[in-house]
Amino acid sequence: MEDKEKNEIVVLRLSHRKNRDKRVTTHVALVARAFSAKKCFYAGDKDEELEKRIKKVVEKWGGYFRIEYSKNWKALLKELKNEDYFIVHLTMYGIPIQNLIEKIKNKEKIVVIVGSEKVPREVYDLADCNLAITNQPHSEIAALAIFLDRIFDSTELYKEFENAKIRIIPSKRGKKVWQKSD
Amino acid sequence: MEDKEKNEIVVLRLSHRKNRDKRVTTHVALVARAFSAKKCFYAGDKDEELEKRIKKVVEKWGGYFRIEYSKNWKALLKELKNEDYFIVHLTMYGIPIQNLIEKIKNKEKIVVIVGSEKVPREVYDLADCNLAITNQPHSEIAALAIFLDRIFDSTELYKEFENAKIRIIPSKRGKKVWQKSD
Repeated sequence: MEDKEKNEIVVLRLSHRKNRDKRVTTHVALVARAFSAKKCFYAGDKDEELEKRIKKVVEKWGGYFRIEYSKNWKALLKELKNEDYFIVHLTMYGIPIQNLIEKIKNKEKIVVIVGSEKVPREVYDLADCNLAITNQPHSEIAALAIFLDRIFDSTELYKEFENAKIRIIPSKRGKKVWQKSD
Repeated sequence: MEDKEKNEIVVLRLSHRKNRDKRVTTHVALVARAFSAKKCFYAGDKDEELEKRIKKVVEKWGGYFRIEYSKNWKALLKELKNEDYFIVHLTMYGIPIQNLIEKIKNKEKIVVIVGSEKVPREVYDLADCNLAITNQPHSEIAALAIFLDRIFDSTELYKEFENAKIRIIPSKRGKKVWQKSD
C-alpha cells in the first residue's frame, strides 16, 4: 500500500551534521511526513539515531513515510532527474514561490532540496528551480512546510495516516488520544 | 514607525533551554519576524546570545521586530489578556486550524504560544483556543509558519522591510543582494 497524493514529493536534506543538526533535521523529516511527502533522503553524516527516531514515529503514527541516507547526493539527484523528478531547491535567494507555484504544481514528481547553512554552488545549478519562501532569513523547516502546503493545496491538513497505533482526537483543552488495542 | 499589518501578532515561546533549544528558538523568532509578527517573547532561560542574534538580523534585514525575555509568562499572558489579546496555543492536540481560522482572523490582537517539549497543563486552560496544524507530530516552527501564513492571508510573502541594509534580489541561480552604501 502507498499514500495516494496527486504529486509525489521526496525531500533531500543536505549536509546533516550529527550533533549540531539533530533536532533541525528531525523537524525537517517530521514536517515532510506530516505534510504528505513520501520520503526524506538526507546527506552529510549518517545518523542511526535520527533514522530510528523517524521510524518510530511512522510505526506509532502510521503512514508509509521513509527516511534514507544518501551517501552521494549528486548521484542521487542525477538518478531522480532521470526518473523525471523536477528539482526544487528552497533558498532565500531564489524566485518568490508565489510567482512559480502554479507551474510547479503541474509536476507529478518533485524532489525538494533543503539546505543546511552553507549550500554548495552546484545545488543552485543542478536545481530546475531555486525557490524562495520570502526573501528573508528564517528557517528551512518553515520553508518546507509552506512549500508542501502550497503543492498539496492544504489537503495535508486533512490527511489520515493508515495503520496508526495512536491518533489524536482533537479537543478544546487537554490531550485526547485513541490507541489501538493490541 | 511601526509595521502596519491588520492583525497585531506577538509570539510567546515557552521554556527555552539555552543550550538545547538555541537553534529551534532562533528559527521560531526568525519565522515570527519574516511572517509579520511584531514581537517574540520567550520564557525559560534568559539567553543574551539569542537576543543578540535576532537583533542583528533586524538591524541588517530591516523592520521593527523585537525579541524580549519574559521572566513570568503567566503574568505576561494575564497582562496581554487585559489588553484584549486573544490567546492561541499551537498544539497537535488542539482543534484543526481549518475549523477555526476564519474566526481567529477577526481578532485584532493575538498572542500565539509555541511550546517546547513539555507544555504545562495551565497553558491549555489559559488559552482562548488550542489549535492544531495537523494532529500529527512535527515542528513548532512549521506550525507557527502555517498559522501566520493563514492569519495574514499569505501577504507576508510580499512584505517589504523598512530600513534594511541588505535586500535580496530574487534570482534564478546564485545569490544577488543589494546593499546600502554607508
